Amino acid sequence: MTVALPLTRRAFACAIFLIACCGQPFTALAQSDSLPSWNDGPARKAILDFVARVTTPGGPDFVPAAERIATFDNDGTLWCEQPAYFQLLFAIDRLRALAPKHPEWKTQQPYQALLDGDMKAFAASGEKGAAELIMATHAGMTTDEFAKIVADWTASATHPRFKRRYTELVYKPMLELLAFLRDNGFKTYIVSGGGVEFMRVFTERVYGIPPEQVVGSTIVTAYVIDDGRPVLMREAKLDFIDDKAGKPVAINKFIGRRPIFAFGNSDGDQQMLEWTTAGGGARFAGLVHHTDAEREYAYDRDSAFGRLDKALDEAAARGWTVVDMKKDWRRIFP
Amino acid sequence: MTVALPLTRRAFACAIFLIACCGQPFTALAQSDSLPSWNDGPARKAILDFVARVTTPGGPDFVPAAERIATFDNDGTLWCEQPAYFQLLFAIDRLRALAPKHPEWKTQQPYQALLDGDMKAFAASGEKGAAELIMATHAGMTTDEFAKIVADWTASATHPRFKRRYTELVYKPMLELLAFLRDNGFKTYIVSGGGVEFMRVFTERVYGIPPEQVVGSTIVTAYVIDDGRPVLMREAKLDFIDDKAGKPVAINKFIGRRPIFAFGNSDGDQQMLEWTTAGGGARFAGLVHHTDAEREYAYDRDSAFGRLDKALDEAAARGWTVVDMKKDWRRIFP
Repeated sequence: MTVALPLTRRAFACAIFLIACCGQPFTALAQSDSLPSWNDGPARKAILDFVARVTTPGGPDFVPAAERIATFDNDGTLWCEQPAYFQLLFAIDRLRALAPKHPEWKTQQPYQALLDGDMKAFAASGEKGAAELIMATHAGMTTDEFAKIVADWTASATHPRFKRRYTELVYKPMLELLAFLRDNGFKTYIVSGGGVEFMRVFTERVYGIPPEQVVGSTIVTAYVIDDGRPVLMREAKLDFIDDKAGKPVAINKFIGRRPIFAFGNSDGDQQMLEWTTAGGGARFAGLVHHTDAEREYAYDRDSAFGRLDKALDEAAARGWTVVDMKKDWRRIFP
Repeated sequence: MTVALPLTRRAFACAIFLIACCGQPFTALAQSDSLPSWNDGPARKAILDFVARVTTPGGPDFVPAAERIATFDNDGTLWCEQPAYFQLLFAIDRLRALAPKHPEWKTQQPYQALLDGDMKAFAASGEKGAAELIMATHAGMTTDEFAKIVADWTASATHPRFKRRYTELVYKPMLELLAFLRDNGFKTYIVSGGGVEFMRVFTERVYGIPPEQVVGSTIVTAYVIDDGRPVLMREAKLDFIDDKAGKPVAINKFIGRRPIFAFGNSDGDQQMLEWTTAGGGARFAGLVHHTDAEREYAYDRDSAFGRLDKALDEAAARGWTVVDMKKDWRRIFP
């Protein structure tokens, strides 16, 4: 018996046009091929289920594309953050480059400790020491000059353990997730404690995330006319720290919409995930749990960088998705 | 003689597909029909010429779509700002609504002056008085509550002279310009001295500009857990004024790219236009000059709101495009 398909020539033409134009019908159906670097498991399933729910027209959880905002932490969520935040390693490299012009650093903390590689003594200098390091290495130049310094560093510096450029130490499964969300109409943002002008140098090339979708910590800049040409000078003054409760504040200020999807990996992301899931309708909150000492690093409650303690308890209590890096990720780096 | 067109069947199919998908080839050609509320004149011509130059593939001034950032001031550029900034009129309406709960305002400045409609006495209270008015009317509630208050006001309040809702007093020629730029691959932003959370309530509906493309002045918000539910409380503390030199600073912080096209109408926009035009390649800077007392208002160098003085001189010196509202605009409001 032959079943007559009720597909007129015109309807067929329309269908071809729609598929050709946006690719959506195929994307939604092709989930079994999505996220190839993720092992089949609860984390991958939770992501695929959520995206299917919010993108099914007429479904109870459908969300219009304009409201599909997804926010990602950067350090430890999209790229590695050990043995220390990469921006801190950049600052130390920068300090070494500047040291010949600053002989006084040989006997001043935190500079002496950093130049000697004595991280214990640097840690003892606390937040004050960290702020001094940032200001000595990140301020006193124009925004264009700073971008050039960061670009040169990312092009040349290599990771002490993996011997690869830092921008190669991004997580392949997360790159796939970013692309998968964008294919499904999401707008992907970075919301990170890292410096916004540090990250923007490479986020478009590395993650496909343009500068205007990167939210981060900032220092004060001043508009100055220099020899008839306007420049923005980076001043040695903190403007905003985009971490912990600062993340929902920054999301509201920069994006002006509440995300429906958020991913982090540490206690610094807890409030972003709370804020995301407190909205109405379907919501997704995810945490990367670093459990793979062999291929990357294993750390959580006691780590100096990317501590995951309270947020891990809250994830269990609230049913947030926790990615077990060792079990859930087939590959780590591209 | 017949000229044989070298158009294969395959090439023809490709051309149809491209036109159907993005509409660009037609848009670029159809400039004579563009901006119908603009009279033929130097301002309209400068806009059309600029857009043609930066969107012509292979041309010397071509700019990739991702870098086609256009920034617009709001008050006096996209909507009317007389007899006073509309957000100030909102604040006064709000003050009146709150007055019954604040009997002390009857004898305190700047409240007494405002409740009596004595704008001269209010002006005498200076920046301090203005800040007190903003804090008394814009702080002390959650971000969601504030958005509701603004939405209710824009839906009901009417302009004293035109007797229309404030969101109807937007400039039709500028709405056409925003749409024309977007049709040509530009991303359109508002960069205004107005409050970002005030504007975001209506910018998507009125201008087609989504919340994440609105940059403005901000007050501090605090992340608070209220009865188990996270909220953002608006505090009576100024965070950032997005005016004058603050505009390039905010553009760099929020957008992270330099615009290639910027439009303003007052001295508050001068630095945004300087910053825009100081970049390399083709750049456009425009100013709306309010010259039409009959259909709107005529004001410039001496106006209390939207003063256009230094920027008008700079426009002449630098060849920025100055829109003569009376001559250049066929219609003012939609």
